[in-house]
Amino acid sequence: MAPIRLEQNTIDESDELRLRQNGLITISEYIFRRLSQLGIGSVFGVPGDFNLSLLDHIYSVRELNWIGCCNELNAAYAADAYAKASKQMSALLTTFGVGELSAINGVAGAYSEFVPLVHIVGTSSLKEKENSEPKNFHHLVANRKIYEKPNHYIYQNIATNFSISCASVNTDVESSCDEIDKTLEAIWEQSRPGYIFVPCDLTEMPVNASRLVEKPLQLKYTSKCTSDEVEQISNQILDSIYQSQNVSLLGDVFISKFRMNEVFGKFVNLLKEKVNFFDTPMSKGIIDESLSRFIGTYYGRAGDDRIADAIEASDLILRIGNFDNEINSGFFSARLPKDKTIDVNPQYIRIGNGPLFTNVTMMDVLPRLVSLVDTSKVNNAVRYTNIPKQTVRSIRNRMRAPLTECDVGSSLETLLQPNDILVVETCSFMVAATRLQMNGASILNQCFWGSIGYALPATLGAALALRDFHLPGKVITIEGDGSAQMSIQELGTMLRYSISAILFILNNSGYTIERAIKGPYRSYNDICPNIQWTQLLKTFGDVCERRSRSQIIDNAKSLNSLARSEFFHNDKRLQLVELHLPKFDVPNSDSFV
Amino acid sequence: MAPIRLEQNTIDESDELRLRQNGLITISEYIFRRLSQLGIGSVFGVPGDFNLSLLDHIYSVRELNWIGCCNELNAAYAADAYAKASKQMSALLTTFGVGELSAINGVAGAYSEFVPLVHIVGTSSLKEKENSEPKNFHHLVANRKIYEKPNHYIYQNIATNFSISCASVNTDVESSCDEIDKTLEAIWEQSRPGYIFVPCDLTEMPVNASRLVEKPLQLKYTSKCTSDEVEQISNQILDSIYQSQNVSLLGDVFISKFRMNEVFGKFVNLLKEKVNFFDTPMSKGIIDESLSRFIGTYYGRAGDDRIADAIEASDLILRIGNFDNEINSGFFSARLPKDKTIDVNPQYIRIGNGPLFTNVTMMDVLPRLVSLVDTSKVNNAVRYTNIPKQTVRSIRNRMRAPLTECDVGSSLETLLQPNDILVVETCSFMVAATRLQMNGASILNQCFWGSIGYALPATLGAALALRDFHLPGKVITIEGDGSAQMSIQELGTMLRYSISAILFILNNSGYTIERAIKGPYRSYNDICPNIQWTQLLKTFGDVCERRSRSQIIDNAKSLNSLARSEFFHNDKRLQLVELHLPKFDVPNSDSFV
Repeated sequence: MAPIRLEQNTIDESDELRLRQNGLITISEYIFRRLSQLGIGSVFGVPGDFNLSLLDHIYSVRELNWIGCCNELNAAYAADAYAKASKQMSALLTTFGVGELSAINGVAGAYSEFVPLVHIVGTSSLKEKENSEPKNFHHLVANRKIYEKPNHYIYQNIATNFSISCASVNTDVESSCDEIDKTLEAIWEQSRPGYIFVPCDLTEMPVNASRLVEKPLQLKYTSKCTSDEVEQISNQILDSIYQSQNVSLLGDVFISKFRMNEVFGKFVNLLKEKVNFFDTPMSKGIIDESLSRFIGTYYGRAGDDRIADAIEASDLILRIGNFDNEINSGFFSARLPKDKTIDVNPQYIRIGNGPLFTNVTMMDVLPRLVSLVDTSKVNNAVRYTNIPKQTVRSIRNRMRAPLTECDVGSSLETLLQPNDILVVETCSFMVAATRLQMNGASILNQCFWGSIGYALPATLGAALALRDFHLPGKVITIEGDGSAQMSIQELGTMLRYSISAILFILNNSGYTIERAIKGPYRSYNDICPNIQWTQLLKTFGDVCERRSRSQIIDNAKSLNSLARSEFFHNDKRLQLVELHLPKFDVPNSDSFV
Repeated sequence: MAPIRLEQNTIDESDELRLRQNGLITISEYIFRRLSQLGIGSVFGVPGDFNLSLLDHIYSVRELNWIGCCNELNAAYAADAYAKASKQMSALLTTFGVGELSAINGVAGAYSEFVPLVHIVGTSSLKEKENSEPKNFHHLVANRKIYEKPNHYIYQNIATNFSISCASVNTDVESSCDEIDKTLEAIWEQSRPGYIFVPCDLTEMPVNASRLVEKPLQLKYTSKCTSDEVEQISNQILDSIYQSQNVSLLGDVFISKFRMNEVFGKFVNLLKEKVNFFDTPMSKGIIDESLSRFIGTYYGRAGDDRIADAIEASDLILRIGNFDNEINSGFFSARLPKDKTIDVNPQYIRIGNGPLFTNVTMMDVLPRLVSLVDTSKVNNAVRYTNIPKQTVRSIRNRMRAPLTECDVGSSLETLLQPNDILVVETCSFMVAATRLQMNGASILNQCFWGSIGYALPATLGAALALRDFHLPGKVITIEGDGSAQMSIQELGTMLRYSISAILFILNNSGYTIERAIKGPYRSYNDICPNIQWTQLLKTFGDVCERRSRSQIIDNAKSLNSLARSEFFHNDKRLQLVELHLPKFDVPNSDSFV
């Protein structure tokens, strides 16, 4: 049995030398060097004949690693999580047609969930794009009329639905570089995906490397309003706060998506004795749970009623970075009175029933709120002494079983430590996760877009983000079995790149979350039976368990011991834990105490 | 270890009873009954909360089986192959947004390769589509302006790029049924995908079941020309044939895609002593190779020069059902003089340098050619005595190794029997496959669209097609390792539905076809190392090898013995054979004798 060797990219040393010598690099290398300037260390994707000449230049950039995924959708998921975990940008690289389309569900998810991801696509050649002959190239959708020329731009047109900026490399070097830079800057500023299309015959086009230094990327938020407007709105918000008796502050996920955690942290610190704090299912961990005024995760009426009662009874709710969507609002069961709510959103400000200001945003206002707030004028909000600290331990399962999802949550609370990243699949456990005591960890999910199969490749992406950015903490993932099978091959990629993470597979014999919705006994909610989850990592190459360890847990006691085990905490191998759970075990609000 | 149980759909007997009683069925059942009327026996897909209420009605139709795949792209590939293998229509069912987008690469492939596939999507409710509130539903792409209403039709708009007709169920039952029927008929007639969108709040809408009988689907080709025009063009073609001395007939893949095999067979039979016959990489097997005038597979200059010389030297080349694309033409190396070529295509007729007749097609003309041809007027074409019967055995590998892809081809020729379906991945073996002696088997590939990962789920689809339509023959698949990992989970689905097939995995340590193009030693052409291919089926559930058998072959002699083994031929279990091949072994034209 051949031992697994640590794979290393072969850096072309000579390229760096060349760069220093004549100052010219290819436009491909230019793109990769821009990624590197952004701090990106891993580029996810799949090679294909339209991107090989582009991809080949990644080896000219010492700081970049190529992370070859098993397929493009998985690569997109991994890139999404890389950006979410690092709070930086991420990069995905695919090939014309087949590759970019395979990834599109993942990119649409990143677009919907405000993830700054650049999707670089190696396309058909400019020569053929401009050729008037009706030639049917592979990977290019045939025309409705087979004898007419196919549309080489068909995928680029589709991409505009899921991106905020697209750059298309052309024969004009300067304008191409301008477009590339503009796209990267837009991705950063708007925190949503953009595309760079590189025709395969332009990959070697020379660019003056000095541009990389002389025209640095402008990573900044450009205000669309005057400072007077900011001042006026900030004061209006503060006045509302001062005039209220029971202020709640809800910190939501757009805070971190728009990199405002530090400013937000200052604001929380200023108000921590005065107002009550809430987070949301998507922002869990954004507010220090140990604060005495941290009440819990507001999940509308899908969550704990006492938490919902508390925030809904406030006379002012200040929502910062609010992301209003079905899942984050407990399936639209959140009921915050509009006239008592102030939204400080990255795309707009709204004060009560007032107008929507779309030229003033969170990035303008939040720093001013921090500077201007006079905490002495803020009234002490109600003290909710009857609401215990949130914890999954408070949930009781109606199921009687040796192991339930509530037990899993309880052990997770033991396991989670500060800076850990908890990746939660869109699965039955998602509901229990809203009750978790995070202990300084943060949540990483895709619960709004909700494409199952996300969490497993996301584990790869998040773990690489921690590694590349030298961040503390570890990645712990909760993945359903129905979801895991969708992207299972990425276990091999995790082994290939020596990923360290803890991966819990909830083996409950199928799509339990769907059984709860419809067809509990229908065959459509079954998945392949009898999958040997704990054999998978061996089968994907780690025969001797040098890089991984797999085990089955079927009772709460063993799981709890595992969560407390020093060895388990410190083992840097990829840990796969298969949890045997009842088929119909779904923690839901009915089962709460 | 729990034994694998054969899964059966639970048919709701009561539904059939109800149908007979009050004559009303739901529109969901209506759709499924239409599929059944088309002869479809398997519906491929993945459940999701937007399609559950639709999908639930599949159990009302005894003749339909739900084939739950591990993910949507794989389901699309399987459906594509189901249609290709059965020469009938196929059905794919996915959920709103995440599901339909995941499948889109497969649907685009079906569109490009003329596969009659209906993609049924359970969408957001009509109520919410019409609601003016800006509500962000899960699986629905968020608006660029997060505070504005998202576009519920965004995916339907994208689908128009990859379909020839879209039906959208609305509150008007009759018009909805009309649209559904029209879409199914268009898919059949044009042999390309169409969509049926079913809002999740309209799935229970009642339809009069009598419509199923009173308005049968019109599965026919509607001529767009007069019979005079057909007569005129047919005679013009026949005159050209009579006036030529050395006619070649090239039978291409659109013959079977437009279900003209029988008519074509008659035409071949009439001319079999007079003209020379050729097929193409995509139509391999369409012409009886045992005919003395069958010369070989025309692959331009990427194939055997003697075959290319023969067809290119003809004074008339009659191309029937030609599909002109990069791969089918040997990377555009085919050089048929336009003035000597007649195209009888499903979308047009062109005679030499004459005009393109787009109102007259193969479906009009081919039957008339059969009726009108006077074989006594056809001159005897040149007898090519110097071209041996095509066989992979004639290829010699430049590689010295215990087992090469040429050896694989050679053993395949032993293995293939009449009516077998050979599924060939877009991989390094694709080139050798053009030389194969088919022995009455036919080829099934996706080599024009060329999305790797296709062949493994295609094996599932093709094997179910043989089962559903009680067709003779077996499915034999050649799959690269780099491709196999992309869709590897579908091995589990094959076990789940007790698929019988032979699956050769070419283990050559990565993307060998890409190593031949660029970066032979680059890490981007590597895949996960050390995958235990022969453990996969056990790991996916068949622990005791009741439904499958896996083995490794690393030399030509053993492979040849296996191909001759009665046991191997007759074993109905899923057979996985891992073939150990050299990393750089690519059969190509340079290596031909």
